[in-house]
Amino acid sequence: MATVDLKRLAKELNLAVSTVSRALRDSYEISAETKQRVFELARKLNYVPNPYASSLRKHKSKTIAVVIPEIANNFFALAINGIESIAQEKGYHVLIYLTHEQYARELSISRHLQSGRVDGLLVSLSGETNNYDHLQELKQTGVPIVFFDRICESLNSARVITNDFESGMKAADHLIERGCRRIAYLSISHNLSIANKRMDGYIRAHEKHGLPFDPKLVLQCSANDNDGNYKAILNLLKKKNRPDGIFASVEKLAILSYQACDELKLRIPEDVKVLGFSNLETAAWLNPSLTTITQPAFEIGKEAAALLFKTIEKKSMNFSEEKLVLNSTLIVRNSTK
Amino acid sequence: MATVDLKRLAKELNLAVSTVSRALRDSYEISAETKQRVFELARKLNYVPNPYASSLRKHKSKTIAVVIPEIANNFFALAINGIESIAQEKGYHVLIYLTHEQYARELSISRHLQSGRVDGLLVSLSGETNNYDHLQELKQTGVPIVFFDRICESLNSARVITNDFESGMKAADHLIERGCRRIAYLSISHNLSIANKRMDGYIRAHEKHGLPFDPKLVLQCSANDNDGNYKAILNLLKKKNRPDGIFASVEKLAILSYQACDELKLRIPEDVKVLGFSNLETAAWLNPSLTTITQPAFEIGKEAAALLFKTIEKKSMNFSEEKLVLNSTLIVRNSTK
Repeated sequence: MATVDLKRLAKELNLAVSTVSRALRDSYEISAETKQRVFELARKLNYVPNPYASSLRKHKSKTIAVVIPEIANNFFALAINGIESIAQEKGYHVLIYLTHEQYARELSISRHLQSGRVDGLLVSLSGETNNYDHLQELKQTGVPIVFFDRICESLNSARVITNDFESGMKAADHLIERGCRRIAYLSISHNLSIANKRMDGYIRAHEKHGLPFDPKLVLQCSANDNDGNYKAILNLLKKKNRPDGIFASVEKLAILSYQACDELKLRIPEDVKVLGFSNLETAAWLNPSLTTITQPAFEIGKEAAALLFKTIEKKSMNFSEEKLVLNSTLIVRNSTK
Repeated sequence: MATVDLKRLAKELNLAVSTVSRALRDSYEISAETKQRVFELARKLNYVPNPYASSLRKHKSKTIAVVIPEIANNFFALAINGIESIAQEKGYHVLIYLTHEQYARELSISRHLQSGRVDGLLVSLSGETNNYDHLQELKQTGVPIVFFDRICESLNSARVITNDFESGMKAADHLIERGCRRIAYLSISHNLSIANKRMDGYIRAHEKHGLPFDPKLVLQCSANDNDGNYKAILNLLKKKNRPDGIFASVEKLAILSYQACDELKLRIPEDVKVLGFSNLETAAWLNPSLTTITQPAFEIGKEAAALLFKTIEKKSMNFSEEKLVLNSTLIVRNSTK
């Protein structure tokens, strides 16, 4: 008996091969009646798709997705530009999904993506996420995932990050050298590796300078409660023994610090020095200009996308082992003068 | 013989009605085995979906797309938050596509969306776009489109905009009242209705005050050439008869004006007053703080999404006629003191 392939099905049904192929992929382009005819014959003849065709089918969307926590953050805006620079070269579309820092949304998006609408995924975790089963499941359906910046430490997956420990240390180092002795650390979420590594660096800088580390100066902010964060920063700055320096682990916490200092009539940098991780375009035009640790956001996006395409194009053997660390830069401005 | 409906199928299969319904809609939430059982019985009993259910099936992607020119712009970040607030209520996913202000990308995305992957579309045009056939075609495939902010005047389509003419007039009025006599208008693109309407308002304000309108003070910037725009603003400010006021039609041109004044050692507001359309979160913390015309970006996104869902849910009779105009606000700060 001849092999049952697409050609055979097409001939028996008097349909084009492409129609049969689309029907088997449940394409919207094919009518329900035709699909039923195709499925019935395929079943009757025990049609088995060949692995090559199947692998082609897997990569037919020509689309990758980027799942990020927010967009009102220049880091992600720039990273997406980096991702799109590669995707465009490859002729792929980029879909952007926002989790708004919520685990529930990340979960819902992951399930949505299981339907196979994309060929690969770039993920930066939400601040609430501390269970990674949804991403493990998605990986198991065969969708390659590259994490960038906010990675999952416990999931063995490809990743592109920056030298957060060293940068955290450099930031605290700088504040100490500028005379700060009580530096508050504003963490964005205790779930996120980036926040924890930046804090580890901050602690190490204290050790290096023989300064005590006061856990009361660590403020665990919430990834999605701006008002709550603002109040917490105000309270910290109202204390009798208030900090003389602020190290914000993310951009939005640096801006809230400016607002809180303004409200309390504390002068930056005279009363409080402020430094933040930031890709803010206006950092140099703030009053005072903001000292930042700036991540190579565009490069991170670009490298993460390049890594993903290596896998989509089957050019990577040990995909899950691929790890890339880029360096951030300290840019000294007037807020730490 | 009793009618074969979802209830009957569910009873015979010992499944919940919602499970049967989802299986028939080929939902990812239902296992392949269950789907097969449901389909087989449906076929056996000659189940005919009723037209209402069928219309529901057409909208099974449960996804809408947002096509915007850029994301490093707080207007779009906020508008997307507004869109997502409605989409989440409706249980829809939101895909974001970026055109990077390029017509070619907008075209490619429109064609991509013709494949029926979304139930509706929210569009803010690229600065390069001056031909709208791609959107007309997409509309004709039955995908409802709502334009927001950067609309297409010649396409009869639902839209949500702000009072750009009045805001442009208010902005120029304010600068004139603060003593400016030579106000430069920085347009983002002569293709965009928003830029042109804001300019019309600026011209009308001159008429109102009996001031001459000097076309040489209108700078046609490019939607995607930041460096070129920067040089053009520098050149304008270097002229002997340089402007004493700048009215930037979009946020990024206001920031470039700060940079150019800094470069040329021109003081804001003493030498040049600057005002810009902007939703910049840091506007109040800039040096000097920036006077803005601020659009209700979140509301624009929310209303545009609400309009789209009215159509998706067939609750709108005259969809293409729906037009909504929201008001922007002048927020006076130190850059026009």
